[in-house]
Amino acid sequence: MRIDGRAFRTIWLAADGASVEVIDQRALPHRFAVRTLRTSGEAAEAISDMTVRGAPLIGAAGAYGLALAMGADPSDAALSAAYDRLLVARPTAVNLRWGLDRMRERLTPLKPGERRAAAYAEAARVADEDADTCARLGEHGAALIADAWERTGRSRPVNVLTHCNAGWLATVDWGTALAPIYKAHRAGVPVHVWVDETRPRNQGASLTAFELLGEGVPHTVVVDNAGGHLMQHGRVDLCIVGTDRTTRTGDVCNKVGTYLKALAAHDNAVPFYVALPSSTVDWRVSDGVREIPIEERSGDEVAFMSGETAAGAIETVRVVPKGSAVSNYAFDVTPARLVTGLITERGVCAASEAGLLSLFPGEESGKAA
Amino acid sequence: MRIDGRAFRTIWLAADGASVEVIDQRALPHRFAVRTLRTSGEAAEAISDMTVRGAPLIGAAGAYGLALAMGADPSDAALSAAYDRLLVARPTAVNLRWGLDRMRERLTPLKPGERRAAAYAEAARVADEDADTCARLGEHGAALIADAWERTGRSRPVNVLTHCNAGWLATVDWGTALAPIYKAHRAGVPVHVWVDETRPRNQGASLTAFELLGEGVPHTVVVDNAGGHLMQHGRVDLCIVGTDRTTRTGDVCNKVGTYLKALAAHDNAVPFYVALPSSTVDWRVSDGVREIPIEERSGDEVAFMSGETAAGAIETVRVVPKGSAVSNYAFDVTPARLVTGLITERGVCAASEAGLLSLFPGEESGKAA
Repeated sequence: MRIDGRAFRTIWLAADGASVEVIDQRALPHRFAVRTLRTSGEAAEAISDMTVRGAPLIGAAGAYGLALAMGADPSDAALSAAYDRLLVARPTAVNLRWGLDRMRERLTPLKPGERRAAAYAEAARVADEDADTCARLGEHGAALIADAWERTGRSRPVNVLTHCNAGWLATVDWGTALAPIYKAHRAGVPVHVWVDETRPRNQGASLTAFELLGEGVPHTVVVDNAGGHLMQHGRVDLCIVGTDRTTRTGDVCNKVGTYLKALAAHDNAVPFYVALPSSTVDWRVSDGVREIPIEERSGDEVAFMSGETAAGAIETVRVVPKGSAVSNYAFDVTPARLVTGLITERGVCAASEAGLLSLFPGEESGKAA
Repeated sequence: MRIDGRAFRTIWLAADGASVEVIDQRALPHRFAVRTLRTSGEAAEAISDMTVRGAPLIGAAGAYGLALAMGADPSDAALSAAYDRLLVARPTAVNLRWGLDRMRERLTPLKPGERRAAAYAEAARVADEDADTCARLGEHGAALIADAWERTGRSRPVNVLTHCNAGWLATVDWGTALAPIYKAHRAGVPVHVWVDETRPRNQGASLTAFELLGEGVPHTVVVDNAGGHLMQHGRVDLCIVGTDRTTRTGDVCNKVGTYLKALAAHDNAVPFYVALPSSTVDWRVSDGVREIPIEERSGDEVAFMSGETAAGAIETVRVVPKGSAVSNYAFDVTPARLVTGLITERGVCAASEAGLLSLFPGEESGKAA
């Protein structure tokens, strides 16, 4: 997608054919920087320090991380060590395990001498397939936005509320929750996006707003507290969010606060959609609230905020008094009963086991095995 | 209540017997400062720029603002002009109108020469009565916390979630939502408070946390997005919030985001209480969502954040990219159906017209006249 008119992906093979380059998302929206990853350790670090973030991108970064490992040492021991190290970089993201498993299955049967080239090729396929998956789910989701526009008699832009950043910066390209918006916008359907700030890391106010500016999509940033009020007053036509992990029953584990927006949507009869590549479905889990472990991150993410000063410097300020305890639960689970539908690369389905199996027959037994 | 061991109110007559002193709440929790108000214009400014905030304190500040006006010019014209100027300083707070109306009714029948002394005396009564009202509703609310403790078999602290700052800094003393917590804590009931950060102005992370530190009440600051997750996992025993305006039917207009927490409480069978002095009841309004105008404040409150740098300076940083639109709705309305009970100075009642009239018989006709 576009930044200042120039097309980018979030991760790509560097010109040297060995190292991997990523957009460093930590300094956005104030600074645009590219970070070079030369080892699997650097890839793991880029995942854990959130240089790259977003479930699909983490999967691709994990795959490239194993490619970097194979470039350095294609032995079984190195493959196993890099797999283990990358897997723990972010505990909640099922895509990370998915990407690593796919790579390991591809590489394990090969002789060490064949692994480097195969690993880079497979990582590139992971990235290309993710971009393609997102483009396809974007088309399916754009149809929902076009339908909403028709329901207004084409009288005004469609108002979509989103939480966090499930945009192209969270994937390789196109995004998940934002892909339908980009596809609708490019197709000439007028759309306006309510962008949740998304505390504590502000991925909405920073990354989603930055993306929408780059693509020229009209949008308004609001605090996370505002969505209920907007929905009570008919200012939201539909919600679209992403997911880091989806249960076989359609429960959705996404950025903390998603559940609150789903409750407000349900209370005001606003359709609430979740956009996901099917790789985020964890077929082994059936009760999201009870079974999905929720990552607790450093309280410093809550107690401190970074931004740009009037002088143009990036500064971090304390916003919680010294002496106060802080908790930082990074995700919450939205029960399937609050989800209108799941937007996948194969179409839109009900948020239920039957719905998912209607689009992905046989997946259940295959993954549970 | 206590700051560094010293007892304070939020507003008091200065030693000169004419000017009024208030705690400047804009620099909290990083700086403690007192601001002196010498004219009614300065009082209006202190209300509109949120040097003082919180519905009950705004009422007392409005009353003292009229006293300052009478000190300068006790004529009918000056009374009318100061009333008008103070009334528009914050459009949502019904307490402001209540305090100003009470003062005008007291002063209008008097000769100009009698007005100054009467105005200061009446403003002092407004302040004293507010402190007494909050202490009494605190006792009623503390009984709910003690009951929750008994239900745990006195096995662990009671977890109370609150939103924004409805503490003593929002009133003259004791607070509304926090008064039950202070009363319970002082009575030896162990209580732990989940403090919502409360974007965009962070009154939870700054003011509520500051208050609880001063009183030694255990607490944990969380982002506004976290409350749903906490309630899903049984980490909240009850919610207590304040209100800027309460309808005759029990709808509650409070800091934006309150509605989302009420939805989560309802979805998880967590009791959701609203603490209020009866002066916040607007008996003329019956449908809060449809009838209460919601104040829109500057988008800069969302786009910029202030805090303390590592070097100890107060710095403001931009957290939304230049070019992105920003909206800032300051309040939302929580429908009575989501409210377990109203904690008032006369006891706890159902959030309904019948509930309110059971404690305040005759108020309806009196105020509607």
